[in-house]
Amino acid sequence: MTLPHEGVDAAVIGIPFDTATSFRSGARFGPEAIRSASALLRPYHPALDVDVFGTLSLVDGGDIEITPGNALRTTEQIAAALEPVVAAGIVPLALGGDHSIVLGELRAQAAVHGPVALVLLDAHADTWDQYYGERYFHGTPFRRALEEGLLDPGRSTLAGMRGPLYEAADLQVPREMGFELITGDELVSMSPGQYADCVRGRLGDGPAYLSFDIDVLDPASAPGTGTPEVAGLQPREALDFVRALAGISFTGFDVVEVAPPYDSPGQVTALNAAAVAYDLLALLGVARRG
Amino acid sequence: MTLPHEGVDAAVIGIPFDTATSFRSGARFGPEAIRSASALLRPYHPALDVDVFGTLSLVDGGDIEITPGNALRTTEQIAAALEPVVAAGIVPLALGGDHSIVLGELRAQAAVHGPVALVLLDAHADTWDQYYGERYFHGTPFRRALEEGLLDPGRSTLAGMRGPLYEAADLQVPREMGFELITGDELVSMSPGQYADCVRGRLGDGPAYLSFDIDVLDPASAPGTGTPEVAGLQPREALDFVRALAGISFTGFDVVEVAPPYDSPGQVTALNAAAVAYDLLALLGVARRG
Amino acid sequence: MTLPHEGVDAAVIGIPFDTATSFRSGARFGPEAIRSASALLRPYHPALDVDVFGTLSLVDGGDIEITPGNALRTTEQIAAALEPVVAAGIVPLALGGDHSIVLGELRAQAAVHGPVALVLLDAHADTWDQYYGERYFHGTPFRRALEEGLLDPGRSTLAGMRGPLYEAADLQVPREMGFELITGDELVSMSPGQYADCVRGRLGDGPAYLSFDIDVLDPASAPGTGTPEVAGLQPREALDFVRALAGISFTGFDVVEVAPPYDSPGQVTALNAAAVAYDLLALLGVARRG
Amino acid sequence: MTLPHEGVDAAVIGIPFDTATSFRSGARFGPEAIRSASALLRPYHPALDVDVFGTLSLVDGGDIEITPGNALRTTEQIAAALEPVVAAGIVPLALGGDHSIVLGELRAQAAVHGPVALVLLDAHADTWDQYYGERYFHGTPFRRALEEGLLDPGRSTLAGMRGPLYEAADLQVPREMGFELITGDELVSMSPGQYADCVRGRLGDGPAYLSFDIDVLDPASAPGTGTPEVAGLQPREALDFVRALAGISFTGFDVVEVAPPYDSPGQVTALNAAAVAYDLLALLGVARRG
Amino acid sequence: MTLPHEGVDAAVIGIPFDTATSFRSGARFGPEAIRSASALLRPYHPALDVDVFGTLSLVDGGDIEITPGNALRTTEQIAAALEPVVAAGIVPLALGGDHSIVLGELRAQAAVHGPVALVLLDAHADTWDQYYGERYFHGTPFRRALEEGLLDPGRSTLAGMRGPLYEAADLQVPREMGFELITGDELVSMSPGQYADCVRGRLGDGPAYLSFDIDVLDPASAPGTGTPEVAGLQPREALDFVRALAGISFTGFDVVEVAPPYDSPGQVTALNAAAVAYDLLALLGVARRG
Amino acid sequence: MTLPHEGVDAAVIGIPFDTATSFRSGARFGPEAIRSASALLRPYHPALDVDVFGTLSLVDGGDIEITPGNALRTTEQIAAALEPVVAAGIVPLALGGDHSIVLGELRAQAAVHGPVALVLLDAHADTWDQYYGERYFHGTPFRRALEEGLLDPGRSTLAGMRGPLYEAADLQVPREMGFELITGDELVSMSPGQYADCVRGRLGDGPAYLSFDIDVLDPASAPGTGTPEVAGLQPREALDFVRALAGISFTGFDVVEVAPPYDSPGQVTALNAAAVAYDLLALLGVARRG
Repeated sequence: MTLPHEGVDAAVIGIPFDTATSFRSGARFGPEAIRSASALLRPYHPALDVDVFGTLSLVDGGDIEITPGNALRTTEQIAAALEPVVAAGIVPLALGGDHSIVLGELRAQAAVHGPVALVLLDAHADTWDQYYGERYFHGTPFRRALEEGLLDPGRSTLAGMRGPLYEAADLQVPREMGFELITGDELVSMSPGQYADCVRGRLGDGPAYLSFDIDVLDPASAPGTGTPEVAGLQPREALDFVRALAGISFTGFDVVEVAPPYDSPGQVTALNAAAVAYDLLALLGVARRG
Repeated sequence: MTLPHEGVDAAVIGIPFDTATSFRSGARFGPEAIRSASALLRPYHPALDVDVFGTLSLVDGGDIEITPGNALRTTEQIAAALEPVVAAGIVPLALGGDHSIVLGELRAQAAVHGPVALVLLDAHADTWDQYYGERYFHGTPFRRALEEGLLDPGRSTLAGMRGPLYEAADLQVPREMGFELITGDELVSMSPGQYADCVRGRLGDGPAYLSFDIDVLDPASAPGTGTPEVAGLQPREALDFVRALAGISFTGFDVVEVAPPYDSPGQVTALNAAAVAYDLLALLGVARRG
Repeated sequence: MTLPHEGVDAAVIGIPFDTATSFRSGARFGPEAIRSASALLRPYHPALDVDVFGTLSLVDGGDIEITPGNALRTTEQIAAALEPVVAAGIVPLALGGDHSIVLGELRAQAAVHGPVALVLLDAHADTWDQYYGERYFHGTPFRRALEEGLLDPGRSTLAGMRGPLYEAADLQVPREMGFELITGDELVSMSPGQYADCVRGRLGDGPAYLSFDIDVLDPASAPGTGTPEVAGLQPREALDFVRALAGISFTGFDVVEVAPPYDSPGQVTALNAAAVAYDLLALLGVARRG
Repeated sequence: MTLPHEGVDAAVIGIPFDTATSFRSGARFGPEAIRSASALLRPYHPALDVDVFGTLSLVDGGDIEITPGNALRTTEQIAAALEPVVAAGIVPLALGGDHSIVLGELRAQAAVHGPVALVLLDAHADTWDQYYGERYFHGTPFRRALEEGLLDPGRSTLAGMRGPLYEAADLQVPREMGFELITGDELVSMSPGQYADCVRGRLGDGPAYLSFDIDVLDPASAPGTGTPEVAGLQPREALDFVRALAGISFTGFDVVEVAPPYDSPGQVTALNAAAVAYDLLALLGVARRG
Repeated sequence: MTLPHEGVDAAVIGIPFDTATSFRSGARFGPEAIRSASALLRPYHPALDVDVFGTLSLVDGGDIEITPGNALRTTEQIAAALEPVVAAGIVPLALGGDHSIVLGELRAQAAVHGPVALVLLDAHADTWDQYYGERYFHGTPFRRALEEGLLDPGRSTLAGMRGPLYEAADLQVPREMGFELITGDELVSMSPGQYADCVRGRLGDGPAYLSFDIDVLDPASAPGTGTPEVAGLQPREALDFVRALAGISFTGFDVVEVAPPYDSPGQVTALNAAAVAYDLLALLGVARRG
Repeated sequence: MTLPHEGVDAAVIGIPFDTATSFRSGARFGPEAIRSASALLRPYHPALDVDVFGTLSLVDGGDIEITPGNALRTTEQIAAALEPVVAAGIVPLALGGDHSIVLGELRAQAAVHGPVALVLLDAHADTWDQYYGERYFHGTPFRRALEEGLLDPGRSTLAGMRGPLYEAADLQVPREMGFELITGDELVSMSPGQYADCVRGRLGDGPAYLSFDIDVLDPASAPGTGTPEVAGLQPREALDFVRALAGISFTGFDVVEVAPPYDSPGQVTALNAAAVAYDLLALLGVARRG
């Protein structure tokens, strides 16, 4: 990938990888599906009152070369591909791919910015130590990131966690790591403003990274994902939470876990993922507009 | 189409046309799908307390002959087919078909009733001047209708508009034409009664036409449509808005943009479209019952 | 089916029958689909704070042998298969199958416990006398159960009924039978606590049976069902209503009308059905935990 | 059904019944799907050189009223509905529906014509005595027909049987009943002319009925069917066998076991069924043309 | 489209247009689907013993800008876009798109090369005068091309025609225009060598254009197409016919009528179309290799 | 897995693994789909005249525990799980799963029997050295097996290879390893007897293993697979090749690369895979019957 760096604000970058998936595979075709579903997007974002494509200089950086079957090596490939992008002051918007890819993204972020705050919208906290004995997996990236010093948990907020757990203590684990954790039940009882206040109250001034796992949405709106959990957010709710973060200057974004083979014929998952990606760029547009 | 006019209150009429579609084609099979999904409908509407099939004399007028590939000529065919229906005092309920068909419907309405008020539920205002240089297209019918003097914008209400735009001024265009425009965000903050008050406050005594574009619903409930926009209405919300209009005496209805090839295997779009069509007939039943 | 009875709390039992369906057949594959979709379930239920698999001794009792094409005989086969299960103090959780199967389930319940209270979540009251002249059908089981003395209507609550009816009196029929009937419109205006108070206020001390027809959900979340009705509950709402019943000691459960051939490629209906089934077991876990 | 009998050659009649299905249900929507897929048919059949719609006076007789859940009663309803059609000299072309419906069709045929010869193309001989204890089922109609004296087995030919059996003697059963049975393996080794010679050699002068079970086709071409068997006929082969029967004057036809919920998105099963139905009418056209 | 002309042998060019479709629309997404399905293609073609990607300098020229809703204007846009490509000595391989697009392609061909010979593999001859009154439609391009002097019918061969016709004379029409017409029935009775001899025997020395309508394949292999006809070619047969043409130096190619919304979940139509496109490039590779 | 070894002839064993897939993932659900599609199988195999379920003592050994994301470890898990099965004289029939699993299977075979002959039906030879740098991948197992001394190439026959290659020498590689390689084009020109003679002529007396990759079938019959290649075998052809091997005493079997998320709604891939699996058991039945 040889990006024209001069003056570029953000780069959309696909990471077609799904080896580290515990249930339904297929997210390797997520980037292709999200790009296809983005055909209806237009420049102006009415809710945030920003001309996204006019304000930002955007490029599509294509897909990162990954290694199917090897999450460890792929993590390295992602970090190597993204670090020069981040170093050039370009905000990457990664399209996944299973959630294991975020570790490579965070390595690139931290290499340039130092430890970043994580703003996560996800049905799962992804802070397990291992899964089937695998340490590089889509349920473990944030623990690895913490071990590697890539994240600042005290400035981070994880929200949307729901569904059955292995044991009662499971949700305590990320909290003991220092993360703020807002369960899905708690999240839907908050207004977008309350959620954003909570996020902002912790963020402070350092760099921040927003990761959006499409499974935070209800399966009716995101059937095409690796580990669906019932009773999630409606797209309207999710976008309102995202938009409430306007003003924060994120240094990186991703939308992950879009698994097209399980999507509906009308590709509702990809449509929602493309809309979220567009809203993330709109957040950047608001921040850059000043 | 030779309808038995004597004593008929309403006619269900298919318009299997999708030439004027900008994104996903397929709405030509909309009428077939909606009819198929209507098999579970029964006479009595509990929410509006009306025996729809007992109160109204209904006929299925079959499909209007259209010209695939030619929106201009099709508009003429639709107007020619519907004018005698409207002139006979029959309320047509058109099943689309892409939204370009409404121009022909409005020509028939205006030829009999004079300019009508438009009550539109739709994700898009469809008031562009042209699209790819085409003036007869599914994003332009209401501007053409206005130019042709078929609509009374001062009595009309467009509601549900959402999604990215070309520029900030886009939503101003229909307002400058004289339409009341309620965005999707505004609509969901209103109660059904508030919405109906707004519609009624503008309508006055003249004729009124209700057009329901299925894409006003969220893609989870209406994946089978030409230009889906994320974060739309839930069916429960949409039906509550429709039902709040009970008492208004509409002279015509349509349900458009049902594109079956993108529908789910369970045909959720067609089911919702059939339910909306049934509710529109229930509105007529309430009006006729007096 | 030879269950190991000693110490078993509950048995999951499939009833792959769909002969008594009026519209879309296919529920015979419901048990297979629900089991497949249950792969992501884990022991601990955070909302009810109960270790479901740790608290309860659960078995999968396989499928009951039924007779496709013969609802009358199948009812007898179900009752014969379940009675020894219930008699052994095991709570059956039946996976359907069309709703006609509940008659066999209730015969087994009543044979052991006497007439039971029914807690029904369903888009339809299923209290018709016949359908196409058939008395053993998926729209008639609760009338048959009443005639056979299996139910105590004065202690029962039916909730979620919606959609067009044959006539205005239809909803009066179950009320005249003595059931409490909460329509879908009424239900969504209640809080989970209000609903549970209503159920508990009627239940008293006798045995209670909970039947969950998946069509109480909106078709976006349950497209794979025999007689979908638009504008139903969101999964989050439905689960909140179910969870509010914690503390009630049910003697039997079912989740019915899951018709996989109409489900989405991501199997959203089956996922929701599996989640409901898990929540029913969690109710039992709460009750057994004391 | 009130058909205009005068001068009508053939009537297309739907029988939307699937209660008597052993595996995949859904054939109740077969007639709707076949009619939908017939939209591309045109008058002239080049291979048989006959103007089908010009030669024959055809009507669509709609669907016969059946009783879901009750095969016995449905058989009577079919016979009652078809007998006046056959008596009026109209050749019925029934669209199924599971194969149990053929018993009602044959009762109507025999009531008018006396015992008929059966020309069957099917993966299964459907001559079981019972299935799950049910005597009126989609695997038993030809044994019932024989018992009722509706068929003349000595003039009949069953072809296309394939797939695993319960025991070695299974294929002997229909032979012992007097039917000629050509297995699928034997059939594909014959030329269309050889097959037709075999059929004609047995037929003699009496009335003949052709029943085409869509599962005689390979599942790649007929996935939407109740009991698919792998390794069946290609459509080109099947149509060549059918066309080779030109000159025989059949008194009735059916195309059965089309189960749309299992069909492909492009509806390949329904397309093939519509093509077979068209070819059956072409056979009649050839016979009537003289 | 600004192609790097120097030394380029062939350009793959999408034409996402489906306005001129008589039955199932959706071919506008054909180019996207064929490109997606081409991911598995590799350089070396064993049957033709040619290193396709090594022998040829290939570019992907993106999609031509077209006008949805306007076949006449689109034809002009296609011709304008392709003429400089052809003039530069680049062989275009167009991915459709409905078959109306071939008229624009042939205008570009004829503008550079003079009238070309047509080698057509298609279920339909596409030589109607009009369709629904439309003269620019997917069933009329070769008549228009003839009228415009773009084709040399005496050097052309149309093969694969099958399915019902309007009248017996229909197949005579293209023959009277001077085309050689080989029906589908005739084609499958020929060996690939016989077919190729027939094509070569007419071609002589002038320029030749190969158009492959995916509906020449059987619907089991090409369900995703606008006007499917049952009983078509198997992919193995079709590819053998194409490969037998090795040695002919074509000046242009297309693969048309791929309609993804009707394709199977495994995208079998797109896979076959990509394979045909690859084989067409292999023909060019053989010709260029000398 | 604790199998009851006494007197068991064969064990069906699922290996739900798809990490080592280069294109479409999803084969981890292959075992579940094949088992589901096997519901229609019956004891007697007419073509081979053997009572499969009567002759053989069969068990379903469930699924082997594997490690998603780790092909190397999974290979070890498979070998460890299967070796005691093979050592007990039980013939395993493995249901995959991507083709990388065969390495574990062959380790178990060779540990008990020494190097085995391979009879492979597959679109690909799977003898690459690495893929994306990965040595344990679904395109490499037979090279690894050769390196580990598990195979006797001189006694082995690989058949069905087709599709584009990286270079002309690709098909020479397995031949240079000592394998007999019959391309797909060669295979379809052979009779089943000729194929079987070729296989038998090489086999001699030692142990033999049959691996059936479902992608040897045409995508119309096997769309649900990881790396589909167009123009493959029809199921009728494939089964005839398999059946011609009757008499050979195989010590192990597999059916691999069934990827359900890409299968058709009617599950044609799984149906064909189940039929192949049944035929493999029939081969064993013939061998054991003596």
